[in-house]
Amino acid sequence: MADFPLAPGSTLGVLGGGQLGRMLALAAARLSFDVVILTPELDSCASRVAARTLLAEFNDEQALKALASAADVITFEFENVPAGVVETLERLGVAVAPGARSLAVSQDRVEEKTFLNACRAATVDFAAIDSAADISAALDRLGAPALLKTRREGYDGKGQTWVESHADAEAAFARIGGVPAILEARAEFARELSVIAARGRNGEVVAYPLGENHHENGILRRTRAPAIVSSHVQEQAEAIAARVLIGLDYVGVAGIELFEFEDGRLLVNEIAPRVHNSGHWTLDGCEVDQFEQHVRAIAGWPLGPVAALAQVEMENLIGAEIDRWPALIGEADARLWLYGKDEARDGRKMGHINRMRPLERG
Amino acid sequence: MADFPLAPGSTLGVLGGGQLGRMLALAAARLSFDVVILTPELDSCASRVAARTLLAEFNDEQALKALASAADVITFEFENVPAGVVETLERLGVAVAPGARSLAVSQDRVEEKTFLNACRAATVDFAAIDSAADISAALDRLGAPALLKTRREGYDGKGQTWVESHADAEAAFARIGGVPAILEARAEFARELSVIAARGRNGEVVAYPLGENHHENGILRRTRAPAIVSSHVQEQAEAIAARVLIGLDYVGVAGIELFEFEDGRLLVNEIAPRVHNSGHWTLDGCEVDQFEQHVRAIAGWPLGPVAALAQVEMENLIGAEIDRWPALIGEADARLWLYGKDEARDGRKMGHINRMRPLERG
Repeated sequence: MADFPLAPGSTLGVLGGGQLGRMLALAAARLSFDVVILTPELDSCASRVAARTLLAEFNDEQALKALASAADVITFEFENVPAGVVETLERLGVAVAPGARSLAVSQDRVEEKTFLNACRAATVDFAAIDSAADISAALDRLGAPALLKTRREGYDGKGQTWVESHADAEAAFARIGGVPAILEARAEFARELSVIAARGRNGEVVAYPLGENHHENGILRRTRAPAIVSSHVQEQAEAIAARVLIGLDYVGVAGIELFEFEDGRLLVNEIAPRVHNSGHWTLDGCEVDQFEQHVRAIAGWPLGPVAALAQVEMENLIGAEIDRWPALIGEADARLWLYGKDEARDGRKMGHINRMRPLERG
Repeated sequence: MADFPLAPGSTLGVLGGGQLGRMLALAAARLSFDVVILTPELDSCASRVAARTLLAEFNDEQALKALASAADVITFEFENVPAGVVETLERLGVAVAPGARSLAVSQDRVEEKTFLNACRAATVDFAAIDSAADISAALDRLGAPALLKTRREGYDGKGQTWVESHADAEAAFARIGGVPAILEARAEFARELSVIAARGRNGEVVAYPLGENHHENGILRRTRAPAIVSSHVQEQAEAIAARVLIGLDYVGVAGIELFEFEDGRLLVNEIAPRVHNSGHWTLDGCEVDQFEQHVRAIAGWPLGPVAALAQVEMENLIGAEIDRWPALIGEADARLWLYGKDEARDGRKMGHINRMRPLERG
C-alpha cells in the first residue's frame, strides 16, 4: 500500500472514462498527480487528458493488475463497478477509495435504504420486492401510487415505474423486467436538494452548501447553489452527510440526494459514492471544487475549504443542446465546461454551464 | 485554414511541453479542445495531460506536418521557437497564433526595443552591439554601468552582464560569448510590474490588473496582484498593452514586463509573446485565467472577463523548494499548482502557490 499523504507526482487510477473522470483528471493534474484511466471506451473523454489509458473491460484481470501496479490509489467515477473488481484491486495490494462497502451499499437500493435508516439518515418507507405478490403486499403498507425501482443498476430515471394500484402490480413488475426490486412510498416532497460532502483519510468531514436540483425526464436539468435553506435544513443535511460518510468509513467525495418537505424535514433519496453532477457548481463557485476535494481526500491530503464564493446556477447541456455553443461562449458571467464528447446523442451529458452572480446571504 | 470561432472538440497544437503548455492544455480541456504537444522531451509534463504528443525536435519537418494536419490552430509556450518553424506551419496552411512577427520581434532584443519605441511604448535607451568597440562607443551615450545582453536567447537572467566602464568592454563582450548583443542604459526603476494582456481575433484587447514582480537570482520569485498602483500607471500600462498588441497584430495572451519609476513613468522591459509566469495569479484570482484567455483568443472565441476577484501573492516553487509540499498542502487560503516534473533541478520551476486574501481597493 502507498504511504499517505501521497507525494506529488504519484499516480491515481480511475475506473471510467466519462466526464467525471475527465474532470477528476484535470483536478489531479493541478496537484501534479498522473492519472491512469481504465475504460472499455476507445478515445474516452477522460483518456484525452490522462497520462495513460488501459483500454479494457472493468473486470479484465490483466488490466486490473496493470492498474494496480501503476496506481498509488484507485477511485471510480460511477457506482456500477462490477462486483469483485474492488475486491480484486484490494487483493492486489492497492488502496481503493471509497472502498468496497460504499459501492456495495450504493449499488443495491434495498441495502442502501437499510444502511441509511440504520445510521439515522431517514428515507421514505420501502419494501424489498422479488415478485408481483410482494408488490401487492407492500402496497398495503406504503400506499398507492408507489415507485418501483430495480434494486441494482438504473440511473437518470431508467429502470423505474410507478405502481398505481394493486391491479397494476403484475404489469409494473414486468415493466422493470421482473428483476429484484424495491418499492418506495411516494414522497410528497417540496424540493429536491443535494449535499456534496467529503471525508478525508484522517476522518475529517466537510460538506458544501446545499444545491437545489431540478430534473427533467429523469435527468438533472439544473442545480442552484447555494440553495436558500433554513439553518435547520443545512444543519440536518450536514448531520446526515456526517453519519453516512462515517457509517461507510468513507474516503472521498459523495453526493447525497435529499427530499425536502414543507415542514423542513429531510429524507435521503440516494447516495452516489463519487463526485456528482449536482456538485458541478463548485467548479466555479468554490475555492476548492468537488473534483480537487475528491483528489485531496483519496490522496490523504488535507481537505480544502467548502464555502461558496458566488451564487451559481448550473445547467446541464444535454444532447443537441451543445449546438447552442456559439451563443454560450459569449455569455457574460457564465463559465462553460464542455466534455469533448464526439457524439451528441439524446440524453447524453455534453457539458454544463455555470451562470454566476454575487452571493446571496440566506 | 480552420473556421473561427473553432467548434468544440477542435484540436490545438502546442509547441513545447513545459508547465505553460501543461496549464494551457488543462484550460483547453475545460472548453473541450483536444491538445497535441510537440516537444523533444520524453514524458513532458504537458504531454501527460494532452490527447497526443509528437516527440520530435521543433524543426522536424515530418513532425511539423503531422502537427499541422492534426491541429486547427497552433500556439507555443516559449518564444525561442526556431526561426522558420512558424513559416513552415503557415505554409502548411494551419493558423499559428500569435504569428511569426510576434516571435521575430520578441526573439531579438534590438528588434524588440526598436518595435516598442516605434509604437510609442518607451524603453530604456539602448544600442546594438556587434563588437567590444561598439560597447565603448555606446557607453558614452548610455552611461556606465550599462547592461549587456545577448540579442537572442537568454532567460531567467542568463546571457547578460553589467559593463562597469570602458575598461570592462572587452571582458564583458567575452563574458556573453562575443555574440550579437544589446547594451541597455541602467534603469533606476522603483518597481518591476507586468501586465498580462490579450487580443482576440476580432481585435478586442483586454488587460488584467497589473502584477508587482520580485526577482531573485534573475528568476521570478513572487508576483503580488493586483499591484497597488495609481490609476495613471494602470492606464499607461493598458495603453502600452494595446499599442503593442495592435502593433503586432497579435492574437492570444502576452506578458509585458514594465519598469515603474518614482514619478509614475513606465518603460517596457520586454514582451513575452505567450502566457507568462507573472500571470499565474490569474489562475485563482480571476474568473477567466490567462491560460483560458489564451485558448479563447486563439480559438476565435470571445475574450473573458479580466477583473480580479481576490488579492493574490503568487510564489514560485523553485528546485528543492518543492520538498516543502507537506506544509504547503495544508496552508489555509492558498491554492497550489504543482507541475508534475520529475526532477527538482536547481532553478527549475516545479510549481507555484497562490496565497489569497480579500481584494484591496486601491
